Amino acid sequence: MTGPASATPRTVWIDPDDAGSVLAIEQRLLPFEYEEVSIRTADAMAEAIADMVVRGAGCIGVSAGYGMYLAALEGRGLRGEEADAHLRRAGATLEASRPTAVNLTWAVQRQLGELIGIDDGDARVAQAREVADTIADEDIAACAAIGRHGLEIIREIHERTGRTVNIMTHCNAGWLAFVSHGTATAPMYAAHDAGIPIHVWVSETRPRNQGARLTAWELGQHGVPHTLIADNSAGHLMQHGQVDMIIVGSDRTTVAGDVANKIGTYMKAVAAKDNGVPFYAALPSSTFDPTIRDGVRDIPIEERDPTEVTNATAWFDGRQIEPRLASPGTNAVNFGFDVTPSRLVTGIISERGVCEAGEASIIALYPEFDGAAPPNA
Amino acid sequence: MTGPASATPRTVWIDPDDAGSVLAIEQRLLPFEYEEVSIRTADAMAEAIADMVVRGAGCIGVSAGYGMYLAALEGRGLRGEEADAHLRRAGATLEASRPTAVNLTWAVQRQLGELIGIDDGDARVAQAREVADTIADEDIAACAAIGRHGLEIIREIHERTGRTVNIMTHCNAGWLAFVSHGTATAPMYAAHDAGIPIHVWVSETRPRNQGARLTAWELGQHGVPHTLIADNSAGHLMQHGQVDMIIVGSDRTTVAGDVANKIGTYMKAVAAKDNGVPFYAALPSSTFDPTIRDGVRDIPIEERDPTEVTNATAWFDGRQIEPRLASPGTNAVNFGFDVTPSRLVTGIISERGVCEAGEASIIALYPEFDGAAPPNA
Repeated sequence: MTGPASATPRTVWIDPDDAGSVLAIEQRLLPFEYEEVSIRTADAMAEAIADMVVRGAGCIGVSAGYGMYLAALEGRGLRGEEADAHLRRAGATLEASRPTAVNLTWAVQRQLGELIGIDDGDARVAQAREVADTIADEDIAACAAIGRHGLEIIREIHERTGRTVNIMTHCNAGWLAFVSHGTATAPMYAAHDAGIPIHVWVSETRPRNQGARLTAWELGQHGVPHTLIADNSAGHLMQHGQVDMIIVGSDRTTVAGDVANKIGTYMKAVAAKDNGVPFYAALPSSTFDPTIRDGVRDIPIEERDPTEVTNATAWFDGRQIEPRLASPGTNAVNFGFDVTPSRLVTGIISERGVCEAGEASIIALYPEFDGAAPPNA
Repeated sequence: MTGPASATPRTVWIDPDDAGSVLAIEQRLLPFEYEEVSIRTADAMAEAIADMVVRGAGCIGVSAGYGMYLAALEGRGLRGEEADAHLRRAGATLEASRPTAVNLTWAVQRQLGELIGIDDGDARVAQAREVADTIADEDIAACAAIGRHGLEIIREIHERTGRTVNIMTHCNAGWLAFVSHGTATAPMYAAHDAGIPIHVWVSETRPRNQGARLTAWELGQHGVPHTLIADNSAGHLMQHGQVDMIIVGSDRTTVAGDVANKIGTYMKAVAAKDNGVPFYAALPSSTFDPTIRDGVRDIPIEERDPTEVTNATAWFDGRQIEPRLASPGTNAVNFGFDVTPSRLVTGIISERGVCEAGEASIIALYPEFDGAAPPNA
């Protein structure tokens, strides 16, 4: 398998040789094959997001930003209200491609805010490209800052215990889920690079096994010691003192600190609470949804194809297949995410620092969210 | 696929046409193929248990009983101390075949108690056969009684709510894990047969997927409505009021009510507690280990081959394969069981009735366990 050409690869970027093409790592083939795909229309980008060619909270936000750039390209010849309507349609399609992550809406709305009303097609395209690249650059900067803040928590544990820090994570909130660094992984990479001994428990994360496929691959490429476990083993390890902290990502976080993340996160959080293991969510500010408080009630949870549960995506005889796991005729239901209530979250690691998972602490760090949620939301 | 010839099949039994052969359902091929294997020596039975040809707490206990019968057959020509030593060696091998379930030890010791000192080989064989069949018959009777007691809990929920009772289970504590009926499934079969509307959430139970393969198959064969979920979805369903109760089996239960069961059970129990969902362990008395109290500390947890985690057992192109799930080179650790502390267990459903998961309640139902555990165990 060949890997990314660059030592500091990105997950999605404009082809330097062809401004009409956005390139992305085809994440459904990793870690067994490395392939880059060319995406040339906003609709194709929405499909790539829905089909999880690109996946992960930050990565799909940045991809939506580039999708709006492709929409601007497609509508270069339009003017006035026609141009605006074209952009709004593309934005709606991109926003609808996955329902749980708020980063999609955030990126689309940011592009619309910058593009609506620009009458000249060339100027719109130039502006859309600049905004998309800015979203990507800000994502990288935010993840790097999350790494610096999270590193201090890991350092404190290491200094207190004097031994390797065992960190558990779930799914992939690594650089593949963003543009670079990742969120949950950023403190791990930073600690490892700073010479602090760490070991990562990687939950396989059924049904799509992003932990087994992507997080294990990322950590392996970076040389970070790690061990794969079945999701079911997480509680047992915590009961036996084998987990010093948990760091997960988030796909949407309410202003009160409820954290939507990959299905299974809540069970890890509740087991962590039962065992006194600190549980952190690492996320950039684009992941906040300041308009709601009660995540269990108000965050929509994506239901995906049941065949992801009845079957597995696996590698056999040199190719990727989807063999059957479940008894023939058995039906399944497949939730993409769950919500961890703030009472189970020790802290939120964001690009502005670490805060408690509560409205007062979050608004102290993000005063711009104050008042965004209606009184009873 | 053909299934069992009998309408009330057993998992393990003496071949009616060949007393030198114990037949067992080859559970590693289910639900895709149905095959019966012939086991002719005690060592072969120990291998069948270790390799999970037969699996499940009750089934491996009964299998060990038949293994001792095969040992008696093999040693038919021995007398006196030689005969006793032969039986003890076979028993030790059978007991060592899997470390967590206490039923193995229980069945082997029961056979030894009946066989040691019988000097005549033919008499030993006859006695061993009778004891083995008795263990199997008692297992069936115990599971049937568990079904009757558990049925009343389900009936109460149905009468209170007036709607379908949603029951979650983990792994396979069905008839395949015993001889007939099962433990966790016995109340489900009893309720379904009594016309109480139930629906079962079947956790796939990585890494070996006994839920997806065996429990889904059993429930389907019996016509019980059920839906498969990834293990990670259990907490989300509980958070959203979709689970009325959980029933699991047990591989070893301490006299204080700590429950060892398939890895992942503890996380379901702690999520159940967090959501006010009643959590029951259904088990026959042979599952109790009256000599210990603290299960998290004192129950040995089997570690299995990591390839069960890095790979999956799946069905593809008409055959069973073990394709790779995890990133190449990634190591895994594979715990077979975990322990749920009694504080998370609403009740224990045993053949003598339902009791609280605490030493006083358990000893009230099982006075013979009183004093078996040393003061500080």
